[in-house]
Amino acid sequence: MPGGRYRPLTDADVQKIHHAALEALETIGLADAPPSGVEILTKAGAVQGDDGRIRFSPALVEDSLALACKSFTLHGRDPRHDLELGGARVHYGTAGAAVNMVDVDGRNYRHSTVQDLHDAARIVQQLDNVHFLQRPMVCRDIEDNREMDLNSIYACCAGTTKHIGMSFSEPDFALSGLELLHMIAGGEDAWRARPFMSNTNCFVVPPLKFATEACQVMENCIRGGMPVLLLSAGMAGATAPSTVAGAITQAVAECLAGVVYVNAVKPGHPAIFGTWPFGLDLRTGAMCVGSGEQALLSSGCAQMHQFYGIPGGAAGGACDSKLPDMQAGWEQMCSNVMTGLAGLNMVYEAAGMHASLLGFCHESLILSDDLIGQAMRCVRGIEVDDETLALDQMREVCLGGPGHYLGTGQTMARMERDHVYPSLGNRMSPKEWDEMGKPDLIANAIAKKEAILSQPSPVAFEPSVDQDIRARFNIHLPR
Amino acid sequence: MPGGRYRPLTDADVQKIHHAALEALETIGLADAPPSGVEILTKAGAVQGDDGRIRFSPALVEDSLALACKSFTLHGRDPRHDLELGGARVHYGTAGAAVNMVDVDGRNYRHSTVQDLHDAARIVQQLDNVHFLQRPMVCRDIEDNREMDLNSIYACCAGTTKHIGMSFSEPDFALSGLELLHMIAGGEDAWRARPFMSNTNCFVVPPLKFATEACQVMENCIRGGMPVLLLSAGMAGATAPSTVAGAITQAVAECLAGVVYVNAVKPGHPAIFGTWPFGLDLRTGAMCVGSGEQALLSSGCAQMHQFYGIPGGAAGGACDSKLPDMQAGWEQMCSNVMTGLAGLNMVYEAAGMHASLLGFCHESLILSDDLIGQAMRCVRGIEVDDETLALDQMREVCLGGPGHYLGTGQTMARMERDHVYPSLGNRMSPKEWDEMGKPDLIANAIAKKEAILSQPSPVAFEPSVDQDIRARFNIHLPR
Repeated sequence: MPGGRYRPLTDADVQKIHHAALEALETIGLADAPPSGVEILTKAGAVQGDDGRIRFSPALVEDSLALACKSFTLHGRDPRHDLELGGARVHYGTAGAAVNMVDVDGRNYRHSTVQDLHDAARIVQQLDNVHFLQRPMVCRDIEDNREMDLNSIYACCAGTTKHIGMSFSEPDFALSGLELLHMIAGGEDAWRARPFMSNTNCFVVPPLKFATEACQVMENCIRGGMPVLLLSAGMAGATAPSTVAGAITQAVAECLAGVVYVNAVKPGHPAIFGTWPFGLDLRTGAMCVGSGEQALLSSGCAQMHQFYGIPGGAAGGACDSKLPDMQAGWEQMCSNVMTGLAGLNMVYEAAGMHASLLGFCHESLILSDDLIGQAMRCVRGIEVDDETLALDQMREVCLGGPGHYLGTGQTMARMERDHVYPSLGNRMSPKEWDEMGKPDLIANAIAKKEAILSQPSPVAFEPSVDQDIRARFNIHLPR
Repeated sequence: MPGGRYRPLTDADVQKIHHAALEALETIGLADAPPSGVEILTKAGAVQGDDGRIRFSPALVEDSLALACKSFTLHGRDPRHDLELGGARVHYGTAGAAVNMVDVDGRNYRHSTVQDLHDAARIVQQLDNVHFLQRPMVCRDIEDNREMDLNSIYACCAGTTKHIGMSFSEPDFALSGLELLHMIAGGEDAWRARPFMSNTNCFVVPPLKFATEACQVMENCIRGGMPVLLLSAGMAGATAPSTVAGAITQAVAECLAGVVYVNAVKPGHPAIFGTWPFGLDLRTGAMCVGSGEQALLSSGCAQMHQFYGIPGGAAGGACDSKLPDMQAGWEQMCSNVMTGLAGLNMVYEAAGMHASLLGFCHESLILSDDLIGQAMRCVRGIEVDDETLALDQMREVCLGGPGHYLGTGQTMARMERDHVYPSLGNRMSPKEWDEMGKPDLIANAIAKKEAILSQPSPVAFEPSVDQDIRARFNIHLPR
């Protein structure tokens, strides 16, 4: 479903951002590359200055862009969930590292657990309009970091066959993670043929510093055949310039450095241009992701991705509201629909994300299926041809016809084709609504959650695979 | 604040719709013009067929478009609230004819009254981001239709000095309305110098029939110096084709007929191109205004208005949800932000409208101030210049600087300029939120409503004017 009818930047603006980013890379460069990265990057033609920073010439950047993978598939474990990245095709999914679960019934925030993550995966599996599951929350009930990373993979894959995304907190954990993924896939060859997980890699610490360990994780993931999300998550006003244009420019510069890095390790390796600048409430210095500024940041990024012709992603659909209330609705729709219309390939954080990324909410995730379905209808846009212009119909209906279009063949034929119907969103008249006992949106979302979670996961691992995994790793989820 | 960065239609699509509309006018035409309209239109060059329908040649339409007023001011009673219509400048306001008030506390729908309308006016007066007050609800406690129309004007003007919009149910009521407006303005000359009310005129009954009485109302309003909103409110799938393109085409054809009509009565009279196609839930045949299809309908219309270079309006921001819940939030934002980005001059129904136009909600109106403020921030877009690209700042911060942008002069300077802060929308962290007693969005909206309504209207009429009005008309609102 291609977007791109919304272009927040003029062509001249795009050029200005591009050239400012190139200049930043050439004159400021990036600090803190790991020794392996220094070697890889300088061998590719980057220059390390006396200040230790790695600087990139425009020619090196352009050469790396030429090598970069322009379109690729993010595989699901089930091929029906494959995502074709490229052009202005739009996909929505979860992401983040929330540390809390939103308990809607009690209006409470509590620590998120591996069970919560698994439940999110099982819910995502049932939602047509949530296309992938990047790990949206941290398993705070697992103290050991290696076990947390591995159990996160397990919890996600045992709940959904959609593409998953995951980070690793140490380079070595990525190797263990690959081992687990091979077991899930049925061997390394099967994994490499259809890698169903990508590595969410915060390879930079904005402004313009490499994240040393994350870069080493990235090298391991690339060698292991895992697509990489090159994630630059600056906060406009704190770790990035406070202006929308400035924050985009810095994120673009950082991701271009990432493109050089990835393609120096392995030319053409699938990598997502992950410019994720976030907003900030400048009054308080607190992160703020539900704002109009955030929608502009991520939509502007989408246009830069298209300029480079490289698959890209950014954050859209997260909210600042603590609960799935009206504020959550308007915040989530604002950036979800704008990034979609701008043709963002991967809209991360699109569902369930509250409290400026600090809380994840299963009920909100469920409601996002309607919300994103509506956004996608908008992205699909207006079809204009002789049939849809409907001049013949007008003539028929008005000149001696019934004077209305109800029940005409064309109207009925269009019913399913053109229109998106909400699942929990309520379109009743006040009278009907009253007669039906005034159905409550949140109560219905809770009921749907309970219905999904009361059933065993339909995509759980084969018992023998599960047994092998549990023999090799300390899996925290109960059998 | 100009929009237009979102263009749902290609240039070729716009041409197709234009030509289909011209063909509809030439070959199908419109039925049911009043005798005065037949005379006015045929004198202008339209042709009445044996079937009674008035048909318009492309040349007549083009000539009328050339005569039409291309930009004008919709005056507020207070000049600070004047709206400059033209280009892609965007304004948001209320509209509609809801028959119920949403009682949020009791989750109830009850009949709307003249007091509710007056209260809505008083609330609108206090909201920066609601730019005009078209009467959003019907005073069901007033049985006499003439009194209802006159009291609606009174209730609105006694509560706000922003531009108001109003319909008249009979031609004669428009004359009485003008008399009241002259009294409020301080005489006919003062009214004609700054007409602060426009006539919401449903001059057509789609598909392609004139509304006989409304046309007569329109003639009276034009002669009385009142701007006209040429409102074509077809329902896609019932009174308009079910396709988005078809519904837009028919609405465009109807409004083009309106342009011919207005400019035949008085060349250059200010008229708003009011293509208001509405969506329909084809499963039930019920109206449905919170959908993605609705956002596309109204955004597509905005682009047609810009093609004709005539100020235009359409419906955006109404929802199907019965309460100000998450669904209301996503539905209201979807069409509000999309129509704004498309550069719709007048976004009608933008605030407070629920249950597919059947209910109006004061709390939702109050929350819309935040929602529309955010949409407007998105419409304002991304400013790209040397300062906002911030290359110098990046250099300073990264090369020997503090390594972050917090508290830099540029960041602080941008705090108010670039950023929009919500009034009731909550950006607290979960911890703060908990410490503050978990503020509830709706409870806060109720409190704000009560604070506004507990004060006397700061823009009430002078006692002597009020006395004269009450002596002349039966005013239902208590003194």
